[in-house]
Amino acid sequence: MEPKNGATIWLTGISGAGKTTIALRLVEELRKDGHAVELLDGDEVRKAFGAHLGFSKEDRDEHIRRIGYLAKLLSRNGVIVVVAAISPYREVRNEVKGSMENFIEVFVNAPLEVCEARDVKGLYKRARSGELLNFTGVSDPYESPLAPDVEVRTDIAEVEACVALILESFISKM
Amino acid sequence: MEPKNGATIWLTGISGAGKTTIALRLVEELRKDGHAVELLDGDEVRKAFGAHLGFSKEDRDEHIRRIGYLAKLLSRNGVIVVVAAISPYREVRNEVKGSMENFIEVFVNAPLEVCEARDVKGLYKRARSGELLNFTGVSDPYESPLAPDVEVRTDIAEVEACVALILESFISKM
Repeated sequence: MEPKNGATIWLTGISGAGKTTIALRLVEELRKDGHAVELLDGDEVRKAFGAHLGFSKEDRDEHIRRIGYLAKLLSRNGVIVVVAAISPYREVRNEVKGSMENFIEVFVNAPLEVCEARDVKGLYKRARSGELLNFTGVSDPYESPLAPDVEVRTDIAEVEACVALILESFISKM
Repeated sequence: MEPKNGATIWLTGISGAGKTTIALRLVEELRKDGHAVELLDGDEVRKAFGAHLGFSKEDRDEHIRRIGYLAKLLSRNGVIVVVAAISPYREVRNEVKGSMENFIEVFVNAPLEVCEARDVKGLYKRARSGELLNFTGVSDPYESPLAPDVEVRTDIAEVEACVALILESFISKM
């Protein structure tokens, strides 16, 4: 028996762009095909590894490196890892990408004003009021991917169409 | 396709007891059988997750929880995880054990004086001189497992015999 090939599908984008929604549907579709699939959600990983890290650039980068390490461990053992994390900084995204094989970068994109109007978790409101500091898109930068493997525009396309696009890219790269 | 069953083989014991030596041989044997196998070494995980944690009881417990989280993620995806970590505190070992399925606790045991005489990394010398603080067995406690799945006595048995004993227990529990 040879372990199957793993991969990492990394969803980057600002809060409210639709990363989690898409990630959950992706996981569902991939599991249907019998793959071992793991979802790594940025917020969950933060919780699992304790409250040491904040939202400074340095801490955000460390957070992304941790997710990258997890994704690498899992994917090299045949797991397909779906990551949903804002991951706002290009350099550390590229660092993580370079650390493993079979990495697919997905830019989950919607204009800030659309994401802010959705404001599912009420976070933008709290960021605008100054209650939340270092909030990506409001008081912290988001560096868009320059050459993602896939870009999905969640303000234009339906979730299912976005998922289909990502799966297509995934299959073509495997 | 259904993902294969994963498991965690957790080696606990003081520095110099032989955890790493046994872990490396275990990994080799398990890979021969075609399993996806991952070694999680306590020192390596410390490095991968940054230098935030020290050697206080609280930090050691957090460190063990992190390794436990990694082992859980991997094993539930069909990977056999071999952990080599001092993991001196019984309570957090049991907590980790209770958090996942297919967990085998291995007590890698040799008397302190034997481990100290070996002193492969020169750590006991540094602990006795007071250069290293909170050193398990010298200035920090080690709480032996009360009911490990396997105990191997590395001062009495050869490495190969220890490995065989662990594999036997592993196979009988799977």
